[in-house]
Amino acid sequence: WKLKTRDNIMQLERVYRFNDFVEAMVFTQKVGELAEIEDHHPAILTEWGKVTVTWWTHKIKGLHRNDLICAAKTDLLNHK
Amino acid sequence: WKLKTRDNIMQLERVYRFNDFVEAMVFTQKVGELAEIEDHHPAILTEWGKVTVTWWTHKIKGLHRNDLICAAKTDLLNHK
Repeated sequence: WKLKTRDNIMQLERVYRFNDFVEAMVFTQKVGELAEIEDHHPAILTEWGKVTVTWWTHKIKGLHRNDLICAAKTDLLNHK
Repeated sequence: WKLKTRDNIMQLERVYRFNDFVEAMVFTQKVGELAEIEDHHPAILTEWGKVTVTWWTHKIKGLHRNDLICAAKTDLLNHK
C-alpha cells in the first residue's frame, strides 16, 4: 500500500495485477462486497489485468484506523 | 461523453451517477460484461454512487470508431 495525497486528502492505494480482464472484474466484485459488509466504500479502478483500490475516510477527509483495517482485508481477498 | 487527453492519448470519458454503492457496482458489472463481449476493455472507476467509464484503443494510443460504438453501447446499459 502506498500513501497518496490527492486534493489534500491522505489516501491508501494499492495496485493488484491479474492475468486478464475477467480476473480483474472478479476481484473488483469481491472488493465491492467487502465495502458493503464494512459499510465503507473505496474507489476501485478496474482495467485489463489491473485493479487499483483506494481507501480513505470521506468524513474526515483523510485516513482513519478503519481504512488500514479495510486495506488489510482487501489483501486477504486477493489471497483467496 | 467528454473527450479527454491523458499522456497524449485521446479518450472518451463519461460519469454515471447512482443512488448508492450497490447500484454503481451493478453498472460496473454490466460494463465489464459488455467489455468481454466486445473484446474491448475500458477503465472503470467505481465509487459510492458514481461510475466513470473511459474508452480508448490501446493499440493506436487514441480513439478508434469502435470506441464510439462501445460508448454508445455503455449508454444503453444505463437505460436498462
